Amino acid sequence: MLAKVVIVGVGLIGGSFALALKRAGQVSEVVGIGRHPEALARALELGIVDRITEDHADALRGADLVLLAAPVAQTGPILEALLPHLKPQTIVTDAGSTKCDVVAAARAVLGDRVHQFVPGHPIAGSESNGPDAALAGLYQGKKCVLTPLPENAAHDVEKVAGAWRACGAVIHTLSPDDHDRVFAAVSHLPHLLAYALVDDIAAKPHADLLFQYAASGFRDFTRIAGSSPEMWRDISLANRAALLTELDAYLAQLTSMRAMLAAADGVGLQGIYATAQRARREWQEAIEAGSLERRSPNQENT
Amino acid sequence: MLAKVVIVGVGLIGGSFALALKRAGQVSEVVGIGRHPEALARALELGIVDRITEDHADALRGADLVLLAAPVAQTGPILEALLPHLKPQTIVTDAGSTKCDVVAAARAVLGDRVHQFVPGHPIAGSESNGPDAALAGLYQGKKCVLTPLPENAAHDVEKVAGAWRACGAVIHTLSPDDHDRVFAAVSHLPHLLAYALVDDIAAKPHADLLFQYAASGFRDFTRIAGSSPEMWRDISLANRAALLTELDAYLAQLTSMRAMLAAADGVGLQGIYATAQRARREWQEAIEAGSLERRSPNQENT
Repeated sequence: MLAKVVIVGVGLIGGSFALALKRAGQVSEVVGIGRHPEALARALELGIVDRITEDHADALRGADLVLLAAPVAQTGPILEALLPHLKPQTIVTDAGSTKCDVVAAARAVLGDRVHQFVPGHPIAGSESNGPDAALAGLYQGKKCVLTPLPENAAHDVEKVAGAWRACGAVIHTLSPDDHDRVFAAVSHLPHLLAYALVDDIAAKPHADLLFQYAASGFRDFTRIAGSSPEMWRDISLANRAALLTELDAYLAQLTSMRAMLAAADGVGLQGIYATAQRARREWQEAIEAGSLERRSPNQENT
Repeated sequence: MLAKVVIVGVGLIGGSFALALKRAGQVSEVVGIGRHPEALARALELGIVDRITEDHADALRGADLVLLAAPVAQTGPILEALLPHLKPQTIVTDAGSTKCDVVAAARAVLGDRVHQFVPGHPIAGSESNGPDAALAGLYQGKKCVLTPLPENAAHDVEKVAGAWRACGAVIHTLSPDDHDRVFAAVSHLPHLLAYALVDDIAAKPHADLLFQYAASGFRDFTRIAGSSPEMWRDISLANRAALLTELDAYLAQLTSMRAMLAAADGVGLQGIYATAQRARREWQEAIEAGSLERRSPNQENT
C-alpha cells in the first residue's frame, strides 16, 4: 500500500497507472503535476488524481513513489525540478519507451542519488493521448520491463515492481541496452515505417483518391501513425543508434526485395512472404497460448 | 435473381460471395469448381455451394454468372479451361486484386468474346484463407471496384454490379490502370512492407527475444503479413510496375528520414510524424462519417 504517489504527466500512461492503483486499492493519495494545466484539470475532474499542484515541494512531501510519464526528452529537466524536494525515502520511476537516454539523464541530474531512480517501461499503449484516454485496465496482463541500475536497492526495485503488479502487469527485467535494441526492432522501427507511409501518401497529388480506397489492411498497418508526433520524435532521437541499425537492416531488406520484384523473381518473393507468414503465425499462436510469458528467461517467478 | 452461379475457387473471397448471394435470396444454385478437392468438399459441407464438380461443361451449363476467385496468375489458365463451354449468355467476372494483368489475360484467351468478361475487385478480405474463413457479411458496406471494358454491354456490367450489391457492397468504377496504381499505394506496398519487417526480424539471431516483446503496435502493423504468400506473390508480380514506382517513392522517403535521424533532426522528423498523424486522423474521421463514400466522383448513385 502506497500512501502517496505523484504522477508527472497525467495522460494515457500516467493516468492509467493512477487509475489502476486506485482500483487495486493500493494508494491513498495521487497527486498530479505536469506541463499542461488543462490536462491536469481534466485528470482531476475524471478522478484520475486526487489533487493537482504546481508546487513541487508540496507534491513531493511524503511521497512514496513518483512516476515520470512525460516524453522521454523531458526526463532531465523534470528530475532537475524534482531533485531539491526529493526526500530520501521517495523512489522515482518512469514509463519511457527508451531506457539508455533516460538512465543517462537520471545519472547526470541525480548524481549519487541515482539509486532512488528505478527505470521502467510498461508495454502498453494506444494511439490516443491525454487523460480522457486513460483506462484502469490498460496494463492488465501486459508486460512491464524494468531496467534496474546497479545502484538500486532490491527493496526499491520491488516497490516499483509491486506497484506495476498491482496494475495487473507482468514484470520483466532487461538491461537498458538490451531494452533499447529490442524495442528499436519491434516498436520504434514500425512506428517510423507507418509514419513514413502515411506521409508519403499524403504528399502525393492524388492523395484524396488513394485515401478513398484505403481499407482495413491500411487501417491496421498505419494505426501506430496516429501516435503523438512529439513523443515519437523524442523516442526516435533518444534511441537513434539502435533505430539507425534497425532501419539500415530494413532498407537492405527492401532493396533486396526491390531487386526481386524488378527481376520478376516470384520464388524469391514468395520465400520471404512465406517465412514472414509462418513466423507471424507462430508468434500469434505463442501470444494466444501465453507461452511467450512462460518462456521468458528474464521474467520473475510470478 | 440468378439461376446459377459458378464459383471458381471456394475460399474466403469466392465462398463469401456465394454465402452472401444465398443469404440475399439472389441465387438458385451455386456450383463450386477449383484446384483443391479438399476445399471443394469442405465448401459443400459448409453449405457454401450446392454442388461441386470437376466437369467444366457440367458446371457452365445454364450458368448466369461465373466468379473467378483464385490467385490472379491463374486467370488465363482458368479462362482457357472455361472457354470451350462458355455459353453466350454467361457473364464471367473476377475478384482479383490487380486488374491490368487480369484484363490482358482475358483479352488474350477470350478474344472477341472478351465482352463477356467484366473485371472486378471487392475491397474486403482477411488474413484468413479457405472456405472456413468465408462469411456471408464479408462485403457488407465494403467497396467493390469494377473496371469495365469498352466491349462490355451496360446490362452485363449491371448484372455483376447487381450481384455485388446483393452482397451488400457499394459499387465504384475505375479504369484498370487507375485501379492498379491506387492499390499499389494503399494495399500492395503495405503488404510488401509488413512481410519485409517480419522476415527481417525472423532472420535475426535474437528473433525469439524480439518476438517476446512485440506488442499490439507490432500485431496490427504486421497483421497483413499473415496473408497468403502465393496470392501476394501473384499480386506483386502482376502489379510489378506500379508497385516498383510506389516502393521507390517509399525508399526515397525512408532514405530522407534516415538522414534526418542520423543528423538528429528532430524538427524534420516531427514534421513528418505530425503530417502523417493529421492525415490519418482525417482519413479515419472521413471513414467513420462515411464521407469517403459520398465524395467518390466515380461512384454510382446508390
